[in-house]
Amino acid sequence: MAICEIISVGTEILLGDIVNTDAQFLSVELAKMGISVLHQTTVGDNPDRLRKVLEIAVGRSDIIIASGGLGPTPDDLTKEICCDFFDKECVLHQESLDRMVNYFSSKALEMSENNKKQAMLPFDGVIFPNDNGTAPGCAIEKDGKHILMLPGPPRELKPMFLNYAVPYLKQFSDKVIISHNIRTFGIGESVMAQKVEDLLNSHNPSVAPYAKEGEALLRVTAMADNEDEANRLAKPMIDEIVSRLNEFIYGIDELNIESAVVKKLKEKGLTLVTAESCTGGLIGKRITDVSGSSAVFGCGIISYSNEIKEKILGVNKDDLKTHGAVSEPVARQMALGALKLSGADIAVSVTGIAGPESDGTDKPVGLSYIALAAKDGTVAVKKLLTGKNGPGCRDYNRLVNASNALNLVRLYLDANLE
Amino acid sequence: MAICEIISVGTEILLGDIVNTDAQFLSVELAKMGISVLHQTTVGDNPDRLRKVLEIAVGRSDIIIASGGLGPTPDDLTKEICCDFFDKECVLHQESLDRMVNYFSSKALEMSENNKKQAMLPFDGVIFPNDNGTAPGCAIEKDGKHILMLPGPPRELKPMFLNYAVPYLKQFSDKVIISHNIRTFGIGESVMAQKVEDLLNSHNPSVAPYAKEGEALLRVTAMADNEDEANRLAKPMIDEIVSRLNEFIYGIDELNIESAVVKKLKEKGLTLVTAESCTGGLIGKRITDVSGSSAVFGCGIISYSNEIKEKILGVNKDDLKTHGAVSEPVARQMALGALKLSGADIAVSVTGIAGPESDGTDKPVGLSYIALAAKDGTVAVKKLLTGKNGPGCRDYNRLVNASNALNLVRLYLDANLE
Repeated sequence: MAICEIISVGTEILLGDIVNTDAQFLSVELAKMGISVLHQTTVGDNPDRLRKVLEIAVGRSDIIIASGGLGPTPDDLTKEICCDFFDKECVLHQESLDRMVNYFSSKALEMSENNKKQAMLPFDGVIFPNDNGTAPGCAIEKDGKHILMLPGPPRELKPMFLNYAVPYLKQFSDKVIISHNIRTFGIGESVMAQKVEDLLNSHNPSVAPYAKEGEALLRVTAMADNEDEANRLAKPMIDEIVSRLNEFIYGIDELNIESAVVKKLKEKGLTLVTAESCTGGLIGKRITDVSGSSAVFGCGIISYSNEIKEKILGVNKDDLKTHGAVSEPVARQMALGALKLSGADIAVSVTGIAGPESDGTDKPVGLSYIALAAKDGTVAVKKLLTGKNGPGCRDYNRLVNASNALNLVRLYLDANLE
Repeated sequence: MAICEIISVGTEILLGDIVNTDAQFLSVELAKMGISVLHQTTVGDNPDRLRKVLEIAVGRSDIIIASGGLGPTPDDLTKEICCDFFDKECVLHQESLDRMVNYFSSKALEMSENNKKQAMLPFDGVIFPNDNGTAPGCAIEKDGKHILMLPGPPRELKPMFLNYAVPYLKQFSDKVIISHNIRTFGIGESVMAQKVEDLLNSHNPSVAPYAKEGEALLRVTAMADNEDEANRLAKPMIDEIVSRLNEFIYGIDELNIESAVVKKLKEKGLTLVTAESCTGGLIGKRITDVSGSSAVFGCGIISYSNEIKEKILGVNKDDLKTHGAVSEPVARQMALGALKLSGADIAVSVTGIAGPESDGTDKPVGLSYIALAAKDGTVAVKKLLTGKNGPGCRDYNRLVNASNALNLVRLYLDANLE
C-alpha cells in the first residue's frame, strides 16, 4: 500500500488564520483510493524549512502532496523549492500561460506580470490545469518518489485533485474502497448508534456513525478488487440499517437535506415558498444552493420585522401583540400568508429567537416555531427548543431551524407528517 | 523567541474524519503570546511513528504541544510515549483520580477500570486538571525542551489550554505580537500586491497579502514589548496602505463585508431591503448572520421566478420579456420595487445566472446585474461577469454576487458610489 504525506504550506495556517480543511479533504479522498496518509505536516512560506520538511517526507513516504504556495507573489515558493529539491528545471508552459490570459480576459481583468511565474512549470512534470483559478498544479517524480503540488484555496484544490491528481494517483491504488452515507434527521447520534450497536463492530463492510450540525449519519464502507464487488458487500448492511432507521432517513448518498427536498419536490411536481424570520434567508439560500431548484422554488419572503410579517404575509396584528412574533399562531399565519401570496403548493415558515440576545420577552433563546401549510389543506406546526444560547449559538440555532424546516417539508413529501 | 511545534495525534485526523481545529486554536493563542509555531504535524495512534515525530520535533523546536491520545483506551498512547521519550516515570496522581471519580458520580455514570490509566501522570511534571472531561493534561521538561500534553476533544483542550497551559507558557513569552487586517473588496490580490509591492519586504511591521473567495486583505503585523508599542509601530504602515488602497477598503479588523454594512447602516440610522434572484436568500442570510441586524434589516424578497418579480416587486412584464430576467432594467426595477414595498431607505437587488446550467438564453453563466435604489433618489446598477462556469461555479458566483451587492451598499454608505 502506497504511503502518502500531506504537506500544507502556508504561514496563515501556522498563525491559525485558516483551518486546514485541505488536509482533511485530501485525507478522505486518499483513504477512498486505498492510499495511506501517515503524516500531515504544515510549514510556513519559508524556503529552508520547506526543504527540510521535504527531506523528512521523502524519507518516510512514497507520495508527497504539497498544497499552497503556488500563488503569484514572491512569498509563494512551493513549486520552486520542490522542483529544485528533485532537480527539475522549470520552463514556460505556454498552454498554462494561454489559459491564464484567457482567465483574466474573461473576467475583464488585467493580468499582472507576477502571474507569469505561475506558468513556469517543471519541463518533464505532469501538469494539472486549474479550472478555477490561475495557478496550475503539477506532479514530479524522482527515484520512485512523487511530489504533487496543488494550489491552496479549497475551491481550486478540490476540483484539481479530483479531476487531475486522482487519475495520476490511480497507479498506486490496487483496491477499491467505496462508502455509502445513510443520512438521517431528527435522531441523535447516540440514539442512532444504539439502534445499530451490533453492526458497529462489523468489518468489510464497516459501519461508522458521524454527527454534524444537528444531523447524524452512518457510513457503510467496503473494500474489494472492484467497485461492483465492494457494492455487493455493502448492500445487505445498508438494507438492514434502512429497516431499522426507516423514517429518520432522508437519503442515501444524498448531499444534504435541501438536495433531498428539491429532488422530492421535482418528483411530485410541487412548488415551495418560504417565509423566514430568524433564519433571514438561510432556507432560501440552502434550497437555491441546489442547481435546478428554480423548477420548484419561485419565491421566499424574509419577514424579519413584525411590520413586514403583517404587511406582506398578512399576519394578524393582534396575534403578534398577544402571542409575540415567536409563537405558534404567527408561524402558522406566516406559512398560510406565503402560500396565498405566492400561489405555491407548499409553504414553510420559521420564527424564532436565534440569540445570543433575547427578543426582550421571557421566551428562551433557542425557541422557535416552524410551520408548514399546503394547498391540500395540511397545516402543521413544530415547536423547537435547541437549548443553545451564549456565544456561538446564533449560527447553530439558525442552521438547526433551517434544517428542521426543510425536514418538515421532507416529512410532508414522504407522507410521514404526523 | 521560543519556537513551538504542534503535534496532533489521531488516526481519525489522518483519515479525514475530523478537521484539525485544535491546531488552529493553539496556533492563534500561541501567536498572541509571541510564541512562534513553525511546524504542525499530525501522526496516527502509532507508537513508533509518534516517537520518530517527537525526535524530529525536539530537534527543531523548544516547546512541543501534543494533543490527543490521552483517552482511556489501549489506542491512547501519547502520554506513555512522551514520558518514555523524556525518561519520566508515571505514577498514580491521587488528586486526578479523585477528580475523575467525582466527574463520573456527578454524571451518575460508572467509572471504568480503563479510566484509571488517565490518572497515571509523570511524577515531576506539571499537571493540568481537566474541568470538562476525564483526561488530565501535563507538561514535562528535559534539557530545556518542553512537551505539553493536552486532550484531543476541543471542548476539553481549549479551556485546559487557556486556564492551565497558558500560565505555564508565560515563561517563554516576552514579546507581544499584534496584527491588523485591512480588508478590501473589488481589487484582485495581485493588483493589490502590486500597489503595495515596496511595503511587502518590510520587517516589523511586516505586511502580507491574503486572498479568499473574491476578497483580498493585507495583514500588518508588529512585535514589541507591549501592545501599545506594537500598535505604535503598526500605525504609520496602516496609514500608508489606507492612503494607497483607499476606496477598496471596507474595514480594518472588520469580520466581513456584511458586518461592515450592518455597522455603517446603524451609524447612519438607515434600513436595508434585499430583492434576490440568483442568490436566493444568501444576502439576507449574510446580513442576518450579524447579531443585532434586525435594527437595520426588516425585509427581503427572494424573487426567484419571473412571476414573483412581476407580482411582488412590480417588475414590468414587457421588460422581462424583451430584456430577460438577467438584465439592467429588471435589476433596477427589482430594487425600486423592494424599496417601495418595504418602506426601507435602501434596496439592493441581484439577478444573474449562477450556473452551472445556462438560463436558456445566450447570456453567459456568471453574468449578473446588481442594483441599488435609495430613498434619496440614488439608483445605480453594476454589471458583473465572474467568468466562472462549469462544476463548482454556482457557489462561487452566488457568493461573489452577494459580496458585490453588499459592497454596493457599502460604497453608497461611504458616499463612494460612482
